[in-house]
Amino acid sequence: MSKTLPLKELAKIVGPDRVFTALEERLCYAYDATFMEYKPDVVIKPANTEQVARVLELAYREGIPVHPRGAATGLSGGSVPQGGGIALVLTAMNSIYEVNRQDMLAVVGPGVITADLHRAVEAEGLFYPPDPGSSEFCTMGGNVAESAGGPRGLKYGVTRDYVLGLEVVLADGRVMRCGGRTVKNVTGYDLCRLFTGSEGTLGVITEITVRLLALPKAVKTMLASFNNLEQSAEAISAIMAAGVVPRTLEIMDDLAIAVVEKYGSFGLPLEAAAVLLIETDGDEEQAAREAAVVRSLLEEAGASEIKIAADADEADNLWRARRAVSAAIARIKPTKISEDATVPRSKIPAMIRRLRQIGRKYNLDLVIFGHAGDGNLHPNIVCDRRDPEEMARVEKAIGEIFTAALELGGTLSGEHGIGLLKAPYLASELGEVGLAAIVDIKKALDPKNILNPGKIFPS
Amino acid sequence: MSKTLPLKELAKIVGPDRVFTALEERLCYAYDATFMEYKPDVVIKPANTEQVARVLELAYREGIPVHPRGAATGLSGGSVPQGGGIALVLTAMNSIYEVNRQDMLAVVGPGVITADLHRAVEAEGLFYPPDPGSSEFCTMGGNVAESAGGPRGLKYGVTRDYVLGLEVVLADGRVMRCGGRTVKNVTGYDLCRLFTGSEGTLGVITEITVRLLALPKAVKTMLASFNNLEQSAEAISAIMAAGVVPRTLEIMDDLAIAVVEKYGSFGLPLEAAAVLLIETDGDEEQAAREAAVVRSLLEEAGASEIKIAADADEADNLWRARRAVSAAIARIKPTKISEDATVPRSKIPAMIRRLRQIGRKYNLDLVIFGHAGDGNLHPNIVCDRRDPEEMARVEKAIGEIFTAALELGGTLSGEHGIGLLKAPYLASELGEVGLAAIVDIKKALDPKNILNPGKIFPS
Repeated sequence: MSKTLPLKELAKIVGPDRVFTALEERLCYAYDATFMEYKPDVVIKPANTEQVARVLELAYREGIPVHPRGAATGLSGGSVPQGGGIALVLTAMNSIYEVNRQDMLAVVGPGVITADLHRAVEAEGLFYPPDPGSSEFCTMGGNVAESAGGPRGLKYGVTRDYVLGLEVVLADGRVMRCGGRTVKNVTGYDLCRLFTGSEGTLGVITEITVRLLALPKAVKTMLASFNNLEQSAEAISAIMAAGVVPRTLEIMDDLAIAVVEKYGSFGLPLEAAAVLLIETDGDEEQAAREAAVVRSLLEEAGASEIKIAADADEADNLWRARRAVSAAIARIKPTKISEDATVPRSKIPAMIRRLRQIGRKYNLDLVIFGHAGDGNLHPNIVCDRRDPEEMARVEKAIGEIFTAALELGGTLSGEHGIGLLKAPYLASELGEVGLAAIVDIKKALDPKNILNPGKIFPS
Repeated sequence: MSKTLPLKELAKIVGPDRVFTALEERLCYAYDATFMEYKPDVVIKPANTEQVARVLELAYREGIPVHPRGAATGLSGGSVPQGGGIALVLTAMNSIYEVNRQDMLAVVGPGVITADLHRAVEAEGLFYPPDPGSSEFCTMGGNVAESAGGPRGLKYGVTRDYVLGLEVVLADGRVMRCGGRTVKNVTGYDLCRLFTGSEGTLGVITEITVRLLALPKAVKTMLASFNNLEQSAEAISAIMAAGVVPRTLEIMDDLAIAVVEKYGSFGLPLEAAAVLLIETDGDEEQAAREAAVVRSLLEEAGASEIKIAADADEADNLWRARRAVSAAIARIKPTKISEDATVPRSKIPAMIRRLRQIGRKYNLDLVIFGHAGDGNLHPNIVCDRRDPEEMARVEKAIGEIFTAALELGGTLSGEHGIGLLKAPYLASELGEVGLAAIVDIKKALDPKNILNPGKIFPS
């Protein structure tokens, strides 16, 4: 940003206490959960839709880049203010406006923390399934912008499957609504889904209506160990083919197990090639019956050990190891690159083999865990970004991970988004025509390219 | 169309046996399931994507309107060739390319009949839930173009929830792919969902990959009668609040009952104010247990009679009456206008009251039935389009139905699309900014407006 920012005008719109220009403040909004770092020129924390609209109107007039931002827990560099300009922080718009039992929906501001919404709706016997790993910190606006997923995506789908309606401020400050309060709606193009996953490049989301389900009454949690990776893959296929859809079906490979057990003693079997963490849900009978089906399929597939949690505390214990993976990995080396290359379910074993080959080829610490049931693996490369030689190997490895995913019929990103990190690879998945189509849409809705410039699209 | 059509060039692309210009042939492609009728100048039945691409390339160059068309069972005039040009009939591209048990997906051509896909996947123990009323005739391409729904939408969602990947020919003949073979995919904008429900105005769908579920092992079907409409609405609310999500929850009002019983004797109670047709599914135990819960809630709400089907034959008998509604209505008068104004679930009783007031006010035969569980009612107006005085009343009534739906927080269309019939009302739901946004997208992807011109957008 070389332009002089209209700071006085911005302060007039949002009030001086919502404009931050000091270096130490700007530094706080330069990051996300990747290793990327770009300082904004100014940080604005609007209080309402009207303020967002007037900030965008001004930014559009002046051609100032605007980087919308929630809690910045993203894993693709989607919210880092590359190129400077305004970091538009939506965290103050954090009201839960409505939890409606009859219509089974909730209306929230973009700054609402996902786990706060979980708790609010669960208190009413309702259920909002999407549960990204960062639920306790991430915001609903960011979840919609990235179409966030999580372990429960296997049975319940991702954020895009729950968005009923949105209020969006367009690049030039005009405010629009799409969707509404009904599950069925085919009036005009599906703009709800277009904005969902658009990573802040098409509009700023200022209000979200999500569909809710009835809260499942019971959950059964179990952990199965396998001495052989192929057997665990067979177990996954057998479970899905049996018509039982577990709520979650997570995998951790031997490296993930070793890293986690080094971090804290969770009692995972160090000799195992992989563990599967599986949950079934429904009412008491359904959860128990499906757990029994899963158990027998795990045994048939050759599981060396199966632990079934007797109650919520034991279930929580089984989850502790899975939840600790990210923290444990971060202990090894300072930089953690979390990918989410996703393949068709049947290609999970092939993808794991390819990932391991890539790790060995480039001599990298590559830990594999993730949502095996829907093919959404999270290979994590642990490295040190101050080491240029290692980072060169990392870059090559990432390129090969994407190639492997695409060769196996998969996608660059299952739930983390493209952001800055994967933008260079976009055309390899979308093809020339597909890429041109999304560029055309971007130009149509943001002709001056002020909304989150540099994200998604290869430069 | 005043231009001379490049018939020779068209015949060169698709072969002369795939080009139809005789009046009697063009008449066969002038209709859909509404009362609208516009003859195309030429009918083209391409055999593959390459032919579609070359036809569009030519049409784009020459500025010829192209109206994509499946089986034309649509209820909003979405496929009638208003303004002439090419009727592009996709019914010959009717191969089921793949039914994949491991990855739980199917790949089909746009001309595949929905019920043929149902049968093909059910033979493998898999399940494709969307079930529009016209399943036995309608095509998957049309289903995607309209994001078709159906009774099972209550539990399982609509077509948009099952589209994993698409191959699409853009207006100028370029071929692109979006989505893929994974359930999770956030690479680039959600073009799958943008094309789904775009009613043939953004591209021609030439291949469809849909996600499949495991086939539920059991279904329980029951029919409940109520002497009072409010009680049936209470029953609906009570069932949804109990956390039981029936597979279907259909309603027929007293007029629908009377019309159906006049048509054939199905044994529906003529004294009832409404009947609910409800199905639960899952494995044997779940279907039975949920049916028992529903039954007791129906009794609590004051159902005057509850019939539970003992087997598939009895279930089929209960469905016969519901399936006969459209045919029965068509016997009363020659023109049948089927609306699908949709409201939040809790507003069903209010909407039914408003619909009846509107019917009385304009002295029209207005029959109410539809998918009560998700607020998607199908008020049908039975009239005679040769009677201009009656049609003037019909037009006013339709306007009031839309106003009522919007005032109750609903939408113009739950599953039939906007097409030609509802285009004049679009702005009242989307607002000026929302409408401008979809116009901008249309212009970006079809700058010459050759794809299904006149549909969706008010002229």
